[in-house]
Amino acid sequence: MGFSIGISPNIRKSPFFDACVADGVAGFSVYNHMFIPTNFGDPDAEYDRLINTVAMWDVGAQRQVEVSGPDAAALVQYLCTRDLSRAVVGQGYYVPICRHDGVLINDPVLLKVADDRFWLSIADSDIGLWASAIAAERGWDAQVEEPDVSPLAVQGPRAEDVVAQLIGEWVRDLRYFGFRETTLDDIPLLVARSGWSKQGGFELYLRDSRYGDELWQRVKQAGAALGIGPGAPNDIERIESGLLSYGADGRLQVNPVNPFEVGLGKFVDLGSDIDFVGKSALQNVQSAGIKRRICGYFVAGDPPQANQQALPVFRGDEQVGLISEVTYSPRLQKGIALGFVSTEIENDSGGLSITPDDGARSVVPAALPFI
Amino acid sequence: MGFSIGISPNIRKSPFFDACVADGVAGFSVYNHMFIPTNFGDPDAEYDRLINTVAMWDVGAQRQVEVSGPDAAALVQYLCTRDLSRAVVGQGYYVPICRHDGVLINDPVLLKVADDRFWLSIADSDIGLWASAIAAERGWDAQVEEPDVSPLAVQGPRAEDVVAQLIGEWVRDLRYFGFRETTLDDIPLLVARSGWSKQGGFELYLRDSRYGDELWQRVKQAGAALGIGPGAPNDIERIESGLLSYGADGRLQVNPVNPFEVGLGKFVDLGSDIDFVGKSALQNVQSAGIKRRICGYFVAGDPPQANQQALPVFRGDEQVGLISEVTYSPRLQKGIALGFVSTEIENDSGGLSITPDDGARSVVPAALPFI
Repeated sequence: MGFSIGISPNIRKSPFFDACVADGVAGFSVYNHMFIPTNFGDPDAEYDRLINTVAMWDVGAQRQVEVSGPDAAALVQYLCTRDLSRAVVGQGYYVPICRHDGVLINDPVLLKVADDRFWLSIADSDIGLWASAIAAERGWDAQVEEPDVSPLAVQGPRAEDVVAQLIGEWVRDLRYFGFRETTLDDIPLLVARSGWSKQGGFELYLRDSRYGDELWQRVKQAGAALGIGPGAPNDIERIESGLLSYGADGRLQVNPVNPFEVGLGKFVDLGSDIDFVGKSALQNVQSAGIKRRICGYFVAGDPPQANQQALPVFRGDEQVGLISEVTYSPRLQKGIALGFVSTEIENDSGGLSITPDDGARSVVPAALPFI
Repeated sequence: MGFSIGISPNIRKSPFFDACVADGVAGFSVYNHMFIPTNFGDPDAEYDRLINTVAMWDVGAQRQVEVSGPDAAALVQYLCTRDLSRAVVGQGYYVPICRHDGVLINDPVLLKVADDRFWLSIADSDIGLWASAIAAERGWDAQVEEPDVSPLAVQGPRAEDVVAQLIGEWVRDLRYFGFRETTLDDIPLLVARSGWSKQGGFELYLRDSRYGDELWQRVKQAGAALGIGPGAPNDIERIESGLLSYGADGRLQVNPVNPFEVGLGKFVDLGSDIDFVGKSALQNVQSAGIKRRICGYFVAGDPPQANQQALPVFRGDEQVGLISEVTYSPRLQKGIALGFVSTEIENDSGGLSITPDDGARSVVPAALPFI
């Protein structure tokens, strides 16, 4: 069962779109109202490059919400649940963003670009709209806009070698989430040690979309000797690594989660005297305690098909969990999944099952990450 | 050049998804984080049904933002640029929604479901998030949530006959945008005379997603004798009819527009004493006057290919307009388009051109609608 997606003007192209087409992109999804490649037609090779050598991904759809102006720092702090009082320029921070009722609505990396300028490098929801409403209603002197900035991710164990060759040896000294603005000849960039995998790597934030094709070619050339090839954020690897996917593991409209349920409690600074959106609601959540927690699952039986939508987890007739995404791990040679389970159920507990289209299977909750 | 879209758990299925698959859906896009069918593989037949008989569309992705509670009416009025002081239960209203700076961020139909309960039936942006921020920051006693409500559109000259047969003869008395809550056996519905075409028709707002397949089958049966078939919101017809597409004709992040530029000035009630988001910015826009206006274009030459992204319109070296979407009109047997042109240029003016991938063409601004 295959479906097509048309390239139509109501959805935006990334600056790397044409280069991806030339390099054989086979599938797209839509993320932040932009086309995002999902695969280049060879899933085994794409996984292999990410795990063993180096992959390049068009993640231009990871848009930036830029907050700037005299009240930018105050606004950003109010939008994020994490204490940012010691945030420094040149460092990124993983930050939960919650609605006033404590529901997680995004989990961006915050880049402090300057003392009065920040980027929220967002997952798939219109945080810019939301943030602009808060800024305006509070009367703060801060602009909330989307700059012309589109990341290209270089991921995998050889990513550092590729980016060092392309940009300079100094990139090896960047800490995790550390970044620096630079140029590659005429191409304006911000280079960060980051990316949505646990295989190591960098994101090259392209700061002028006219150079999309040129940057893509330069990365491709720099990585050619190391076997670089195109790919996309990889669901298998992210499940193995226990990376959260806002959208798959929780979304306001489908499966609302709070940060404590998805393991982000350490980034919710309720103890400090800072105020932020959702603080009182999250204090109540913390007091009451959570009823489910994010977890891995081992999935018994033959290699499972990827699920199209979340799967309930049952113990007998009782639903005790939910699986966001199931996959087959080539490295573990097992079916694995990422999802939620009742806090009353411990890892390694038996007696749980799912009933996907390809047949009932037993599942066993497991610690994350798998690898 | 064809691309696939995978059905993955980070994007939601509509309640009509399985029925559409069974009926041969061939393509999807993503709208409000939900899969929306784009075609069933036979564009000529799909257009023909819409124009000459009757079509049924899964528009479940047209989500509802429900605003309820004691301050619901006040909040909805504050969110919308249109004076709603005389709005009545049972009637829908086309309402621009703007950001505080006057940029259009959605153009829903507002349904006043009860005195203290409203639905904004939204285009593709996270208005619920934005509205919840405003409600909370103002401390208003109103809830902003997404109910389990998914529209199925029945459109075309015979739509009324189909819906009357299925629901009852009373639907013939509904005014444009008029609606009534009802049931079809056990299926809870809200039936409205509305839909994103100018061929007439209804939207059946399904109020319990468990009945998605049943409702689809009932509509299909009711329309069988009249030749009903599946389809999707139709870009050709919408261009012929001059219907605005938030997303294609303007989007906050790509081509920000204000309501006056897109012909919605009549729904911006600056003269009243009501307050709404963006009012002062829109007063400034009105005072300064707009520099471009929405318009049709006749497109010379052979039937044009559908464009993937907006096309600049030139007069010599000067950009004087922008085409959102170009198509071939089977009824006019001409290339036509929808877009913008400088207010200094009148309809029927010569000397304008575009340069799409299939070759330069002259274009002539024209009044909307074409038909």
